[in-house]
Amino acid sequence: MKKDRLEAFSDGVIAIIITIMVLELKLPQGHDIHALLPLLPVFLSYVLSFIYIGIYWNNHHHMIYAVNTINGRVLWANLNLLFWLSLVPFVTGWMGESHFSMWPIFAYGCVLIMNAIAYTVLARLLVKQAGHDSSLALAMGKDWKGKLSIVIYATAIIVSVYCPWISLGLYWVVAVIWFIPDPRIEKKVADKAH
Amino acid sequence: MKKDRLEAFSDGVIAIIITIMVLELKLPQGHDIHALLPLLPVFLSYVLSFIYIGIYWNNHHHMIYAVNTINGRVLWANLNLLFWLSLVPFVTGWMGESHFSMWPIFAYGCVLIMNAIAYTVLARLLVKQAGHDSSLALAMGKDWKGKLSIVIYATAIIVSVYCPWISLGLYWVVAVIWFIPDPRIEKKVADKAH
Amino acid sequence: MKKDRLEAFSDGVIAIIITIMVLELKLPQGHDIHALLPLLPVFLSYVLSFIYIGIYWNNHHHMIYAVNTINGRVLWANLNLLFWLSLVPFVTGWMGESHFSMWPIFAYGCVLIMNAIAYTVLARLLVKQAGHDSSLALAMGKDWKGKLSIVIYATAIIVSVYCPWISLGLYWVVAVIWFIPDPRIEKKVADKAH
Amino acid sequence: MKKDRLEAFSDGVIAIIITIMVLELKLPQGHDIHALLPLLPVFLSYVLSFIYIGIYWNNHHHMIYAVNTINGRVLWANLNLLFWLSLVPFVTGWMGESHFSMWPIFAYGCVLIMNAIAYTVLARLLVKQAGHDSSLALAMGKDWKGKLSIVIYATAIIVSVYCPWISLGLYWVVAVIWFIPDPRIEKKVADKAH
Repeated sequence: MKKDRLEAFSDGVIAIIITIMVLELKLPQGHDIHALLPLLPVFLSYVLSFIYIGIYWNNHHHMIYAVNTINGRVLWANLNLLFWLSLVPFVTGWMGESHFSMWPIFAYGCVLIMNAIAYTVLARLLVKQAGHDSSLALAMGKDWKGKLSIVIYATAIIVSVYCPWISLGLYWVVAVIWFIPDPRIEKKVADKAH
Repeated sequence: MKKDRLEAFSDGVIAIIITIMVLELKLPQGHDIHALLPLLPVFLSYVLSFIYIGIYWNNHHHMIYAVNTINGRVLWANLNLLFWLSLVPFVTGWMGESHFSMWPIFAYGCVLIMNAIAYTVLARLLVKQAGHDSSLALAMGKDWKGKLSIVIYATAIIVSVYCPWISLGLYWVVAVIWFIPDPRIEKKVADKAH
Repeated sequence: MKKDRLEAFSDGVIAIIITIMVLELKLPQGHDIHALLPLLPVFLSYVLSFIYIGIYWNNHHHMIYAVNTINGRVLWANLNLLFWLSLVPFVTGWMGESHFSMWPIFAYGCVLIMNAIAYTVLARLLVKQAGHDSSLALAMGKDWKGKLSIVIYATAIIVSVYCPWISLGLYWVVAVIWFIPDPRIEKKVADKAH
Repeated sequence: MKKDRLEAFSDGVIAIIITIMVLELKLPQGHDIHALLPLLPVFLSYVLSFIYIGIYWNNHHHMIYAVNTINGRVLWANLNLLFWLSLVPFVTGWMGESHFSMWPIFAYGCVLIMNAIAYTVLARLLVKQAGHDSSLALAMGKDWKGKLSIVIYATAIIVSVYCPWISLGLYWVVAVIWFIPDPRIEKKVADKAH
């Protein structure tokens, strides 16, 4: 089975998810500059989620690029990831609209951890199919970033019940960890390619 | 006529359908964990419909992959399928918002059966064009899954007037039937390919 | 300039237009079968517009397929067509919600005629670029369908002020004219290809 | 890294942005022709933003077309541009709904200038990667259009506090500057290609 349509469909779904989030930015109540102020939490939540979805798209891009064919299991693991990604706009809107209350931050963490798990499952299936000496397997390595993210998310979910602001900080920490490129991975893939 | 744009357009429409369904998950009334509870039926309806749309995308992918060219009839049969798929978010939202009332479950079944019929029509046209000894014709076989689905949907629609919960169970049964891969089909296509 | 991204972008925009129209089908007020009744005009408007957008996509597909390269003018003529297509959901929603009142039917005709004109402009530019002995020029011929559509739309817009139901009938007539395939065109393109 | 998915993803996001803007055109309050009048400012804002997004898509198309590969920095610079583009529907809706009040016009200018800056950053990164004697570098030249736009936007933002209508005029001026094709650029790229 070819991967073209999997890529096209995933690109479509991720493009829609990243764009419909902005619909949570409802028109301000008034035409003054102060009318924008209550939207600030929604805007900040949108920025965080935009970065997250961007990271997922970026990594999805790399991962699928490294394989040649896909099977039925991969298709469903991919749909599972898209399902959890599709819940990001909902928890983003709730978190912003609640001005960063406890339970919305808790829910946001739950959706993020489910995304991370779904991504890990998809990655494992792809590595299994590509073989353990494939460039994908080398690039994934021990996947410390993925494991660390899940640990941080789990911590953030528990902490959110006591101090939601720390959880929010932890979500940004994970975003920064993924945002900073890992030079070794690009190098490994490049080495393998030549 | 080439099939590239039919695939691209169908992927786009299905990607949008699967994603706008999540817009029915309105922001909770409150910032408490209990505020999520009334959304549970909407969420469960979303899960069921997400699986259905996923199955349709998956099968659409396979079916179009197996043919080389398309004609005007196929284009319209495909648009007919997309039309009925586009009504899924509407009945999903109604079913969830009504907390699984009788008529919304009835309407959900009607849209599902129309989807199944539209899919069958598209499949017949594609098999006719590809020829009866094509890999697509072999893969479709007697299409017992398609026929069985239509029978189950018809039963579910009738039963819904008396006992809507049974209908809901039947919708899940069809989803499971399609979700479980049929090893013979993949094998036949693979045999034909080699 | 290559046409791939023009196709991809147009497919994306048309796919979104055809799908967001269904968002005008608001959830029924109630859980009874009768609650669906007030939605019937919205549903019928949706069916008509779905067919229209389907026809435009179909013809757009054919037309772009027949050319090899595009220039800056074509890009903007295409964006102009997409602009007028993007207004279809708005007038569709208004027409349905007003239960087929006079002015919404008038506005619907105005958007349809602007679409037809934008399409004609795009077609002329493409024929001019492809040359008058190209397969596209042959396929377009004297474009009687396009000219007839514009005449019918103009009639329907004028008539709508006196008798909106006739206008509505005329919109369906145009849809049927385009829906029925013209065997000569497919034949001419096929002849040219061989 | 190949550019195909970057193009596909950007096309998807831009297609959605350009289309969801029309959702700000809420259904008129009434079925009379006069009911359309209050929508006129929203419609005019939509026209302006549609042209802007069209220009960005058009230029994005050209720019990415001129490079062969992309790196991680380009991916993020592209996501940054898409982020600022995604805010256009929000400020468009606000500007229209406020019937061109001061602060919405101010905010519209801020989003436009951020778009222009994000675009310039992306262009610089692409030129840097392609090399200073590449066709892209030649086509960009001294990028006087880009620099002039940023200067006009800055002026419009400052002026908006005193006389918002002048700012609105300046936004149209920039749109016209970009809309009129620059024959030298197309010529240079064509020369380079041959």
